[in-house]
Amino acid sequence: MKVAKFGGSSVASGEKFKQVAKIVTSDPERRIVVVSAPGKRFSEDTKMTDLLIALAAKVQLGEDYMNEFGQIVDRYREIVTELEMSTDILSDIMANLQSIIDIHKHDSFRLLDCIKASGEDNNAKLMAAYFNHLGHEAYYVNPKEAGIFVTDEPGHARVLPHSYQEIEKLKERTGILVVPGFFGYSENGNMVTFSRGGSDITGSILAAGVKAALYENFTDVDSIYSVDPRIVKNPKEVKEVTYREMRELSYGGFSVFHDEALEPVYKLGIPVCVKNTNNPSAPGTFIVPKRKYSDTPVVGIAGDTGFCNIHVSKYLLNRELGFGRRLLQILEDEGISYEHTPSGIDNISVIMREHQLTPEKEERVFSRIQTELEVDELFIERDLALIMVVGEGMNSSVGIAAKATEALARADVNLEMINQGSSEVSMMFGVKSEVVPKAVEALYNAYFNNVYSISYTNS
Amino acid sequence: MKVAKFGGSSVASGEKFKQVAKIVTSDPERRIVVVSAPGKRFSEDTKMTDLLIALAAKVQLGEDYMNEFGQIVDRYREIVTELEMSTDILSDIMANLQSIIDIHKHDSFRLLDCIKASGEDNNAKLMAAYFNHLGHEAYYVNPKEAGIFVTDEPGHARVLPHSYQEIEKLKERTGILVVPGFFGYSENGNMVTFSRGGSDITGSILAAGVKAALYENFTDVDSIYSVDPRIVKNPKEVKEVTYREMRELSYGGFSVFHDEALEPVYKLGIPVCVKNTNNPSAPGTFIVPKRKYSDTPVVGIAGDTGFCNIHVSKYLLNRELGFGRRLLQILEDEGISYEHTPSGIDNISVIMREHQLTPEKEERVFSRIQTELEVDELFIERDLALIMVVGEGMNSSVGIAAKATEALARADVNLEMINQGSSEVSMMFGVKSEVVPKAVEALYNAYFNNVYSISYTNS
Repeated sequence: MKVAKFGGSSVASGEKFKQVAKIVTSDPERRIVVVSAPGKRFSEDTKMTDLLIALAAKVQLGEDYMNEFGQIVDRYREIVTELEMSTDILSDIMANLQSIIDIHKHDSFRLLDCIKASGEDNNAKLMAAYFNHLGHEAYYVNPKEAGIFVTDEPGHARVLPHSYQEIEKLKERTGILVVPGFFGYSENGNMVTFSRGGSDITGSILAAGVKAALYENFTDVDSIYSVDPRIVKNPKEVKEVTYREMRELSYGGFSVFHDEALEPVYKLGIPVCVKNTNNPSAPGTFIVPKRKYSDTPVVGIAGDTGFCNIHVSKYLLNRELGFGRRLLQILEDEGISYEHTPSGIDNISVIMREHQLTPEKEERVFSRIQTELEVDELFIERDLALIMVVGEGMNSSVGIAAKATEALARADVNLEMINQGSSEVSMMFGVKSEVVPKAVEALYNAYFNNVYSISYTNS
Repeated sequence: MKVAKFGGSSVASGEKFKQVAKIVTSDPERRIVVVSAPGKRFSEDTKMTDLLIALAAKVQLGEDYMNEFGQIVDRYREIVTELEMSTDILSDIMANLQSIIDIHKHDSFRLLDCIKASGEDNNAKLMAAYFNHLGHEAYYVNPKEAGIFVTDEPGHARVLPHSYQEIEKLKERTGILVVPGFFGYSENGNMVTFSRGGSDITGSILAAGVKAALYENFTDVDSIYSVDPRIVKNPKEVKEVTYREMRELSYGGFSVFHDEALEPVYKLGIPVCVKNTNNPSAPGTFIVPKRKYSDTPVVGIAGDTGFCNIHVSKYLLNRELGFGRRLLQILEDEGISYEHTPSGIDNISVIMREHQLTPEKEERVFSRIQTELEVDELFIERDLALIMVVGEGMNSSVGIAAKATEALARADVNLEMINQGSSEVSMMFGVKSEVVPKAVEALYNAYFNNVYSISYTNS
């Protein structure tokens, strides 16, 4: 049994629905289909999810929302018309939307969450109806019916462990089961969404629940690339990547696959294949528990911006038991999570995602560090980026660091930070945001094109 | 006014006392002299401090201690005889030792501390008497009289801030003032020692108190070397080093100067000169607030062993607010201080000095990490060393990291960890202990002999 998830661009139009149906019905093992809400059909197009957010905003403001409501229904209508299906289903969709508005209009947080989830939900109904229209046995399966139970944290739901036994029962059902992505149900019956991009999570949970042979993740690229194609033209395709490598690449800014989504399949060792809906015969990228590292020790290079660094120093700091712990406690009290804490003897840097540090939080954090820790020096460095060189094969390989630092020096990239050694899967470099493209390109050329090589000369 | 401190080997014999007197009297600015206890005269010799520890041990056990007592007095007697001084002073020394024993024999902790401190104390009395014997105006000044007040933590005393006003009054006195190093007095009148090597601390406190023009630290080497001479033969002498660089080098294993000792003079910007008692005309090494970095961006390479690394990993660890803080709390609860915490996305390494981790503490720490943090993976890596490349001039210098990693790769040194970026003064590499000599040598050759150089070839 395979679980196939189709992303927003794969279900953006009637034409795409036809392609999905062709893919699903071409392999009888493809029994569970997870769909996103309709995505963009062209680069200036608006995603269904954004139309829904606009609708929720109008409802919250108590303003007339018929225009936004109409746009949403029109978007589904176009798909139905393109597929030459009966428009009866549109009344169901309209009734569903209206009932969400009526129930939640006084709870703007819940309203937004349920309206967003309806994008996937109604699209799954449409997809199931299209399979039926083509004469296939297929069913829309609501996440509650499927057994996807989650914590009641709208926008951050986490699957509850007992879901998996429930989901396993889907194996007994016949036909194609179409499940909307992006949300589950809390114990007290609320629709609750995962974080954005969470349809990947739904697919992964279902694949784990039914112990699928393969979790196929259909998107709009032939494969995952070893580097961002906007930085390096025609980069090398990644044929195989391990879960751990994928997680590091996602963290480093690879957006093709939602990183939290790997957890359920990772635990069971279920392989994932990222494929192109528009070119399903291309082999795609396999995400697997283990791969052969010999030919490609490094699998990819990622770079992500939006970090900052709070730097503190204090003479004889390293003699103070509890200094680091108290520093982290101050951040925790403000709900700020940090990424890394490289340290010297008398100084610590705390690297974090910059957006977390609102001006108010920054002021409170700085004032507490100053008064409670009595530091000699305290400053913030903004506009930092982290660049990750990822590959399980580089573990304890002499010279890997030399290759990277040499390539970066050659490209005249100044290193704010090097972090290597804790993770066996990656090496991390902190640089100023503006040098990310040249740094990433230099590293790509070093590892994938062998452009620079060290030669040793005695002088 | 200069403060001149003479280390153990500089006051180990009558011959050395003569040398010290010659140095002190050759410059009328040398007004405050700090002495250690007599050190080794030859490599198999026993230091006075170790004789005193042996005496304290016998007293504590309630055993006959006349043999140990006799050895100590004999050691002073040899000096007195060599200097052709009256032996009257030996009675004072014997009475002093006996009174410490009588007062503290039932408090073994305090006994050890006071007996150890007597090594410096009696040697200072001897030195002052020798100056008088030569016809110079000189006075033994007890630390209480000098105004060195400290916290009541035997073996770890810290100077109390009001000491400095007291010490400043020494400027009004005439003659040469000889002060014993290594200890001060608590508010309730106890002799309390600094950590071992603490005579450097006494000198620094006195230099800060009298706002000396220079703090001279006389030892048995011509200068501080850029690398351990046991690893690299005839290494480059360091002419100038900043306080911050010196602290990093001390941390990295340079033992020539007690690192805590720099704090008092650092705060006032008083320069320190490390000189050789046996070759006082050599310029020595100046420790200064700032230096010119242009010709020597890297000032020294140090390597220290005895570290270990506790490694934890957990899937999606970086989403858990407070994980790092709770990990550090567990260590703090056991009184374990850590050095560095390099981290990946889903893992953290905590690097600490290995001796802290007794088998019992290790067991408790591991069990708490496992149960409270529910980690996926937990292990300890032993026999680690930290190698530091130190130099203020390497701050934001492109290619410094490349030079180091290239040299290490060339020497076939596998890097367990790289830590660069928090400190502007150093770059740190974690390696297995057994490769320290070859790693240090490779780095020395790269920075000081330019043995390896990077050349770039397109292939």
